[in-house]
Amino acid sequence: MTVQGVVRGLATAIDAPGKTSSQQSFQSLRVNGSRLMDSIHSTCEFGKAHPYGDHPTETGMARLSLKDDDKKARHWLIDQAKALGCTVTVDQMGNIFAVRPGKSAKAPVMMGSHLDTQPTGGRYDGILGVMAGLEVLRTLHENDYQTEGPVGIVNWTNEEGARFPIVTVSSGVWAGSIPLETAWNCAEVPTLMTDPSSAPQTIKQELQRIGFLGATPASHETNAIGAHFELHIEQGPILEDERQKIGVVTGAQGYNWYEVMVRGRDSHAGTTPLAARQDALLGAAKMIAASNTVARDLDGLITTGIFRAEPGSVNTMAHTVRFTLDIRHPSNERLAEMVERCRETFDRIAREDCERGVAVQWTTLTENVAVEFHRDCIAAIEEAAEDVCGRLPGAEEDKKLWRRMTSGAGHDSCHVSKRAPTAMIFTPTRNGMSHTPDEYCSPEDCILGAQVLLGAVVRYDATRT
Amino acid sequence: MTVQGVVRGLATAIDAPGKTSSQQSFQSLRVNGSRLMDSIHSTCEFGKAHPYGDHPTETGMARLSLKDDDKKARHWLIDQAKALGCTVTVDQMGNIFAVRPGKSAKAPVMMGSHLDTQPTGGRYDGILGVMAGLEVLRTLHENDYQTEGPVGIVNWTNEEGARFPIVTVSSGVWAGSIPLETAWNCAEVPTLMTDPSSAPQTIKQELQRIGFLGATPASHETNAIGAHFELHIEQGPILEDERQKIGVVTGAQGYNWYEVMVRGRDSHAGTTPLAARQDALLGAAKMIAASNTVARDLDGLITTGIFRAEPGSVNTMAHTVRFTLDIRHPSNERLAEMVERCRETFDRIAREDCERGVAVQWTTLTENVAVEFHRDCIAAIEEAAEDVCGRLPGAEEDKKLWRRMTSGAGHDSCHVSKRAPTAMIFTPTRNGMSHTPDEYCSPEDCILGAQVLLGAVVRYDATRT
Repeated sequence: MTVQGVVRGLATAIDAPGKTSSQQSFQSLRVNGSRLMDSIHSTCEFGKAHPYGDHPTETGMARLSLKDDDKKARHWLIDQAKALGCTVTVDQMGNIFAVRPGKSAKAPVMMGSHLDTQPTGGRYDGILGVMAGLEVLRTLHENDYQTEGPVGIVNWTNEEGARFPIVTVSSGVWAGSIPLETAWNCAEVPTLMTDPSSAPQTIKQELQRIGFLGATPASHETNAIGAHFELHIEQGPILEDERQKIGVVTGAQGYNWYEVMVRGRDSHAGTTPLAARQDALLGAAKMIAASNTVARDLDGLITTGIFRAEPGSVNTMAHTVRFTLDIRHPSNERLAEMVERCRETFDRIAREDCERGVAVQWTTLTENVAVEFHRDCIAAIEEAAEDVCGRLPGAEEDKKLWRRMTSGAGHDSCHVSKRAPTAMIFTPTRNGMSHTPDEYCSPEDCILGAQVLLGAVVRYDATRT
Repeated sequence: MTVQGVVRGLATAIDAPGKTSSQQSFQSLRVNGSRLMDSIHSTCEFGKAHPYGDHPTETGMARLSLKDDDKKARHWLIDQAKALGCTVTVDQMGNIFAVRPGKSAKAPVMMGSHLDTQPTGGRYDGILGVMAGLEVLRTLHENDYQTEGPVGIVNWTNEEGARFPIVTVSSGVWAGSIPLETAWNCAEVPTLMTDPSSAPQTIKQELQRIGFLGATPASHETNAIGAHFELHIEQGPILEDERQKIGVVTGAQGYNWYEVMVRGRDSHAGTTPLAARQDALLGAAKMIAASNTVARDLDGLITTGIFRAEPGSVNTMAHTVRFTLDIRHPSNERLAEMVERCRETFDRIAREDCERGVAVQWTTLTENVAVEFHRDCIAAIEEAAEDVCGRLPGAEEDKKLWRRMTSGAGHDSCHVSKRAPTAMIFTPTRNGMSHTPDEYCSPEDCILGAQVLLGAVVRYDATRT
């Protein structure tokens, strides 16, 4: 189905009741699908990378947080929001809040996500949520639709944690979960530096450099949010496998990040007998293999994405290896058990499986308990999903095209949910793959998601009279 | 024992027969131990790094081949050799040949080793051999000792293979085992680059930059060597464990270097089920752990010193990992068996142990068969070792302080031995550790080694009348 087809389908499928007041009913509001897709792909010129096909949009993204391409996307977003009459605020973490006034002053209902990507990321993770939020504001604006309270969009800085290794760091500061100084001093990971001969830059240095170190406190206390809705690609295989269109996300699994440092002794690869070795790299390799067994045994996920060995010479054993662990489970108890099992296993390997032994030391990068989203937000999304999906052309009568689900990934919504009613909307993701250049959500699904976002926000807003 | 003590001990311990001709007997020649140690430590100012103690000489070295510090050491060496009346030649690989004339023109008897070090190397590996060779020339010079044929020293470029990942590359070119173009085009390893934002430099580019791209062909055919003696630290624990002073090295074990590339697929660490993964880093970790089992089973050595993962983000699986394998065995048959066993095991892991599978691809960096050194050179070293060690103060009558042994490491002597009679002399190495900052050979042992080198060279030279 073409983009136009989806938009026409939505227009005919959803009943548009007659106006009952001076403004049209929210149920007749329709996002502009072509405009949404154009916003996504035109702004992906800022940071596009890793082409995988012949079409100009068949590339991935490398829009690392606070690099120049991120700066360009930020300025574009601010310009568009201002053109809609929004008030734009930038806080101390570079979070951008663009708010459209409502009938009365209230804490705004926000649609939030992020514009930064992984170094080999795609065009939808985060970007869809921000651009769909903008499309909702544009739709409200062009229909001259007055919401009860203010409605806005927020772009959270460094959600990915790819360049600066604290994930969702800026919503975390806003929520009071991460100290501002910790976030400001977070330095970029060396492997992603453009110029690794210079010193790694901190978040604060880079906020200053690109002009996004705002004066507004990054705080839920002084810059409150009334509710937070986030549209996001699922990044997993469930919706696609079940041939469903919308996930109503009721919570997120817990996840912890660690850096594990293994220290041995550098010595000559040709003259040091195996029995005399303290080989940090061999120890780290055994630990990573063992962590995979722990993940299988406890039905969770463990991933090592960064691995650095020093000094890095073919015929010299590494004296130091640092690697990361990303450990996840929907159950907080099981998550803690996985961490404990890894600690025990690594200690045993360091002591017994590395000849003369190596030392192992853990540093916690982030720990995030599993979260449950707010029932009122979930209810608003469910109503909107039922409305949009239930009337889609081709929908079988006995097949519900939306479902409740839990998020496998962490999102800014997890932090925000501690300080404001929050829930998320998922769209299908081709092959369940994200954080890869050919990550893909079809135009039909992007537009459906944006329409559900619109429906959820105006429904939630309507309850605030 | 102090340096002076050793020198006095040598002076009194070794009989100095009366002159029987117009010049003194070679058996009365004594190296100047203080001068040798001063040459070692003063030139280690060029590239010193990694202090491990309070004394100024308690540092390691980071004198990477063809960097500015290497250039300084080279100029120092050339100046010293010219002051002794040597003819200095620099060939197309930057190898430095400094030759002192003898009674008649012959291919020179050379004392060769290398001035470059590992990135976390020490003060003795390679450096001892060059500085001891210089000390031998100085001793001949100040005693006005005329050798039968020319005697000289050679500094071989990039022996370590640390910066440019082909070990003993320049003696290999000289010996006709490595094509000149292959060597010239060898690019530095990214992890050791001072400025990783620029393109990796090649050997030829760096030879040009530091002014050591000589015009003389790097060839045993046009620049022949009469014999090659190399004094080197053992880099292993045998001499120390056996409380012996000198190793007469009769050959070297074979060793092969490979780069293994593992390719999977990058995807999100939180939303990609284990069963849907193609995790290149997990696959590489399992392969490295398995290679260690192969090494144990076949009584050889396997080491991974370099490991790079891309893209390098905590919550994204690596799509590509490159790691090195250094595989060694004294038996060529067993070495081949180890390589074959690793290939089979890695293929099985890639196919069966990595969920949806990863691809594995090997690139050969260097393959070096086990070598046997020349009996005449070995005999000359044995006579010198027996002479020097047999008369040491404190030597027990029933305890021989030297032994025959095989080298665990590769050396320039392995290439040279194909084109000229060659053998090596080993000195003890504290804790058997090298390629580490606190690599250490005592002054006593350095001086003993230099004295044996002198004795071996003049004995071998005397047979060439």
